[in-house]
Amino acid sequence: MRESGRQFNQLREITFETGFTKHAEGSCLTRFGDTHVLCTATIEDQVPHFLRNKGTGWITAEYGMLPRSTHTRIDREAARGKQSGRTQEIQRLIGRSLRAVIDLKALGERQIKLDCDVLQADGGTRTAAISGAYVALHLALQKLVESGKLSSLPLTHQVAAVSCGIIKGNPMLDLDYIEDSSAEADSNFVLTDEGKIIEIQTTAEDRPFEETHFNAMMGLAKGGIQELIQLQRKALGL
Amino acid sequence: MRESGRQFNQLREITFETGFTKHAEGSCLTRFGDTHVLCTATIEDQVPHFLRNKGTGWITAEYGMLPRSTHTRIDREAARGKQSGRTQEIQRLIGRSLRAVIDLKALGERQIKLDCDVLQADGGTRTAAISGAYVALHLALQKLVESGKLSSLPLTHQVAAVSCGIIKGNPMLDLDYIEDSSAEADSNFVLTDEGKIIEIQTTAEDRPFEETHFNAMMGLAKGGIQELIQLQRKALGL
Amino acid sequence: MRESGRQFNQLREITFETGFTKHAEGSCLTRFGDTHVLCTATIEDQVPHFLRNKGTGWITAEYGMLPRSTHTRIDREAARGKQSGRTQEIQRLIGRSLRAVIDLKALGERQIKLDCDVLQADGGTRTAAISGAYVALHLALQKLVESGKLSSLPLTHQVAAVSCGIIKGNPMLDLDYIEDSSAEADSNFVLTDEGKIIEIQTTAEDRPFEETHFNAMMGLAKGGIQELIQLQRKALGL
Amino acid sequence: MRESGRQFNQLREITFETGFTKHAEGSCLTRFGDTHVLCTATIEDQVPHFLRNKGTGWITAEYGMLPRSTHTRIDREAARGKQSGRTQEIQRLIGRSLRAVIDLKALGERQIKLDCDVLQADGGTRTAAISGAYVALHLALQKLVESGKLSSLPLTHQVAAVSCGIIKGNPMLDLDYIEDSSAEADSNFVLTDEGKIIEIQTTAEDRPFEETHFNAMMGLAKGGIQELIQLQRKALGL
Amino acid sequence: MRESGRQFNQLREITFETGFTKHAEGSCLTRFGDTHVLCTATIEDQVPHFLRNKGTGWITAEYGMLPRSTHTRIDREAARGKQSGRTQEIQRLIGRSLRAVIDLKALGERQIKLDCDVLQADGGTRTAAISGAYVALHLALQKLVESGKLSSLPLTHQVAAVSCGIIKGNPMLDLDYIEDSSAEADSNFVLTDEGKIIEIQTTAEDRPFEETHFNAMMGLAKGGIQELIQLQRKALGL
Amino acid sequence: MRESGRQFNQLREITFETGFTKHAEGSCLTRFGDTHVLCTATIEDQVPHFLRNKGTGWITAEYGMLPRSTHTRIDREAARGKQSGRTQEIQRLIGRSLRAVIDLKALGERQIKLDCDVLQADGGTRTAAISGAYVALHLALQKLVESGKLSSLPLTHQVAAVSCGIIKGNPMLDLDYIEDSSAEADSNFVLTDEGKIIEIQTTAEDRPFEETHFNAMMGLAKGGIQELIQLQRKALGL
Repeated sequence: MRESGRQFNQLREITFETGFTKHAEGSCLTRFGDTHVLCTATIEDQVPHFLRNKGTGWITAEYGMLPRSTHTRIDREAARGKQSGRTQEIQRLIGRSLRAVIDLKALGERQIKLDCDVLQADGGTRTAAISGAYVALHLALQKLVESGKLSSLPLTHQVAAVSCGIIKGNPMLDLDYIEDSSAEADSNFVLTDEGKIIEIQTTAEDRPFEETHFNAMMGLAKGGIQELIQLQRKALGL
Repeated sequence: MRESGRQFNQLREITFETGFTKHAEGSCLTRFGDTHVLCTATIEDQVPHFLRNKGTGWITAEYGMLPRSTHTRIDREAARGKQSGRTQEIQRLIGRSLRAVIDLKALGERQIKLDCDVLQADGGTRTAAISGAYVALHLALQKLVESGKLSSLPLTHQVAAVSCGIIKGNPMLDLDYIEDSSAEADSNFVLTDEGKIIEIQTTAEDRPFEETHFNAMMGLAKGGIQELIQLQRKALGL
Repeated sequence: MRESGRQFNQLREITFETGFTKHAEGSCLTRFGDTHVLCTATIEDQVPHFLRNKGTGWITAEYGMLPRSTHTRIDREAARGKQSGRTQEIQRLIGRSLRAVIDLKALGERQIKLDCDVLQADGGTRTAAISGAYVALHLALQKLVESGKLSSLPLTHQVAAVSCGIIKGNPMLDLDYIEDSSAEADSNFVLTDEGKIIEIQTTAEDRPFEETHFNAMMGLAKGGIQELIQLQRKALGL
Repeated sequence: MRESGRQFNQLREITFETGFTKHAEGSCLTRFGDTHVLCTATIEDQVPHFLRNKGTGWITAEYGMLPRSTHTRIDREAARGKQSGRTQEIQRLIGRSLRAVIDLKALGERQIKLDCDVLQADGGTRTAAISGAYVALHLALQKLVESGKLSSLPLTHQVAAVSCGIIKGNPMLDLDYIEDSSAEADSNFVLTDEGKIIEIQTTAEDRPFEETHFNAMMGLAKGGIQELIQLQRKALGL
Repeated sequence: MRESGRQFNQLREITFETGFTKHAEGSCLTRFGDTHVLCTATIEDQVPHFLRNKGTGWITAEYGMLPRSTHTRIDREAARGKQSGRTQEIQRLIGRSLRAVIDLKALGERQIKLDCDVLQADGGTRTAAISGAYVALHLALQKLVESGKLSSLPLTHQVAAVSCGIIKGNPMLDLDYIEDSSAEADSNFVLTDEGKIIEIQTTAEDRPFEETHFNAMMGLAKGGIQELIQLQRKALGL
Repeated sequence: MRESGRQFNQLREITFETGFTKHAEGSCLTRFGDTHVLCTATIEDQVPHFLRNKGTGWITAEYGMLPRSTHTRIDREAARGKQSGRTQEIQRLIGRSLRAVIDLKALGERQIKLDCDVLQADGGTRTAAISGAYVALHLALQKLVESGKLSSLPLTHQVAAVSCGIIKGNPMLDLDYIEDSSAEADSNFVLTDEGKIIEIQTTAEDRPFEETHFNAMMGLAKGGIQELIQLQRKALGL
């Protein structure tokens, strides 16, 4: 049993609250327990320079944490004058994950920017961000279809992400901050609705770990992703 | 009558939702109509370098807008690598406004950092930020009293802020974004519960304007501030 | 009586020395007592990107202090790699103030850059900068008229600025550094030759202050601005 | 058969040339075919601030590419004024990988900095960097033992890294640049001499891929790592 | 004969106006014809970190150009966020030149910062800066002697600087901007009152040049420096 | 006799190893004893903005030191976020030196970028960089001739560089790091194959020095440059 009372293979309480802010073409306040990430999608008519006049679109992502989203306040990156390596790593991951489920040619010469801002952090912010960014992206694409700019959704798969870890030798699904801090291994899985792989990152926290532990985390992740996929569909009214 | 149906001297719907996030010593989601600002207060045991060992505390503020808080997306300041002049101007204003209502000596050698992050913008973000930062600050100070670190609240006044403008020759209270864009003059008033002045900033938007217009805005502001003061007190359970 | 021997409503010795440097289209060394600000106006044929092909011009300003313009040396902003919040606030104020007295359409697709560099500081650098920038701007516009590029001066008003403060309960005009450091309230007024308002900024230095004090400062400012307007006219040979 | 004539499970020609530069406590020019990475280890007596007086050491890494290490010249990061997200991601990975095989307490209050600079790039620079950084680290630690500062090597495992990919449906070991550009999936494996996992990163390049493909890459990597481990030992004279 | 009417070996009109600003420990507005550089010396009680507790002082210099000191406006370095390579090169040269004529041990644990700001530029700003910085430094050191902090001036030599060039095959002393733009070779000489060498920099502008030309410039420089030394002495009342 | 056993007028062992890396149009690992600099030349079809459509080419240079090229590790400039003044000074010198020996009009609208990266430092890195950059430039230009893009090499002279110093009153050629640290004067000479001057920089390290010492260094440099010119020719197969 985990401190939170959850089973080893149990997700935290997950909610995707669409329309949390009104200006963005798609917006979703994503909650994985006490981790709250506001994801918005913005449609822009210009693609980045390297894609001009190639008949293809682009998806990119930015990530940030509010200074007091965390237990102790972290410096504001805008004030420090640069984004940390961690921030850049996460936003690159979000961008790659979403680009893998869209037909960029079908999107046309448009760019969709996904902003994932952590309002409150309690572990797993990057997996919440990817899962919520999918919802925001889907909403924004629906607007393009509704307005007649696209004839159908250019999405090829549905995507969600979840973390797993090994704690005192036991594999656990969807770690919160306390669990994450004591994990011996830590993995992030980005999978499709069909269980295909988009991205896996696994890291030994302290010392190398066994392949059997990796396989156990993989198994947990597949189950968790299936639940997340259903919750996304419900939020999107599918 | 205004487009929103409000009277010239009518505030938007105002709410101060305390405890919106859980880690900060004080937190308040402040809504002035569709302008939503998350204000948090963080207590730190260290004062800035220039105040060390002087037996006095400090209050400072930081301000930011989420990239898609606005009608069209703005660049993320962390990604651009610097805060705009407007951002710095606003956070300096928030800091000055709050320092004016606290006895820094009574606070002791502590710093309180007020983070004001705009989740959704519709005009008047700086006045919402000041008004909400007061609530967050009050909550954080209460914690210091409850934990016995302070014997009483070191606050000397209550403070709130509101904007006014002249639109087609008519003074209006608490402008939304559309009103703000067409105003001939634009003012921000930061006043205490007793109507004393902490800060006034008034600007001609297009051409110089008459002193009588300034006086009319001043009159509206005094009324609006009184309402805001009451709403803050209610949110704080006073 | 003030330490300097001035009356409460008396300006410091003011001079506008035109042509102090030879390359700029307009240049004016502005002295408010021991505060010396070199103001230059540069005419450029290109407007900023957001105004291209709109048939309108632009005025912008930059402000800086030489490192040893002050009592104790301040860091060189170019070496620190960024302009302070105070610097940006002041240069934004100068730009707004001058844009309010010019017909930008009549200026045509040109930009005038006003550089205000403080050679020596003794309080009131921003009001000296605005007052001197007007002179430099006027000189540069005269060149455009003389060379036939404009048929008449596109100026709609004359503008000057002055500070006021409350010291030991007494309103005072045009504070020097020592006075400024001990003021209970501090205001900057940017007014036209007709006494119309372009910008007012008033700040409580330590604790909130009474509206009657604000009104007294306003009264002093109106008188001081009238004198400054005459001195500008004399320097311009009007 | 691959374009280079290699078998699907064949490494490129690998060399670890120790002592390539003379000042560093450990240095190794690492060649994975035409990918050449200079790895140096520097021992410093100070640990980072967050570890002071905790009786533990630290390993950190920095990564860079010479501007013309690549087919077409890339901008110099020092001239651009910041490290790219990719650079930061790689140097964080190298640091984590090496920290996982050392007993930081046994290292004592010392920091070892691993600099990995790519002189020539042809795919797989990060895996060459990790593999070579291990050699440089080992050499530097030997110096600490030889000089009597440590009684024994504080290493707990040996580590090496290799990339794998799926090309036209076939798993391949140790991709060069041309192969990497056309891969459908791309993985980096960081494993110990015993085959334990330190880090795995796998990414779908274009569309999601099957778990069986992941498993095939994992199998190839284990074989490749065993060969790399032997080559490292030979270079170290073990 | 030169366009300005000067002889090939004739300096421009040179003035060293001491006390141009009042706050600095030493200040001197230096004019080499239309090149005007304000040089100030600031005494600080702290030396840079690498010299702490070594019983020795330090001299350093900073250089800047006002944006409209030049024929066409240059960007403000503070706004661009960094100093150009040229600026850094010049300020390093000024610092080295002044450190060569002072006994740093005799100065004691103090730092003197020399700020050289170009108010108007017409060629030779770096040589004017060095020559004027010497005057400002001398004045500041006199204050230390007068106040009893030093028993005597720690200066070992007097220093001045001048430029020379080759124009249409003819060596010329102290080039103005027009001359500098058309020179085939350009040299800066920093010499002492006894004609000893502190720094020489000579550069071919377009194509390599003959040693005889270099020697001719050297000869002119020695004469010019002697005159500058006398003018400095006069300004200092020696 | 020098510590290294060299005569006062003897160069270190010099080698120019062409083709050290494979992607660049020209590459040369240059060794002046233990100083090793990798020089590469990159041909680009675009000239900088200020030269567009003027029918002329451009040569520019960048310089860097690997963090552990030195006795004690130096900070990575890419991580610090800016190039030091020294770095910028050196890369400007390299660029000027190479531009002086090429007919930029004959080069056509192309830019050649010379990257000089110090793999190991032992004094004289800038002179090794200039000497090696010439070789890399020559190789790149040969490729343009071989491919028919140029009909002949647009080079007007051959260039090499060497340092000299005064140590305990004696002039010495080609200082290594230890010698450089104890020199009373330090000079860098950039001369052509015919002994013409491109650039001379001479600096008093501690106190002013005599012109006779300068002349002695000049004499040594001329001899050393002649040897370097022959070694370059041999490396280029001329």
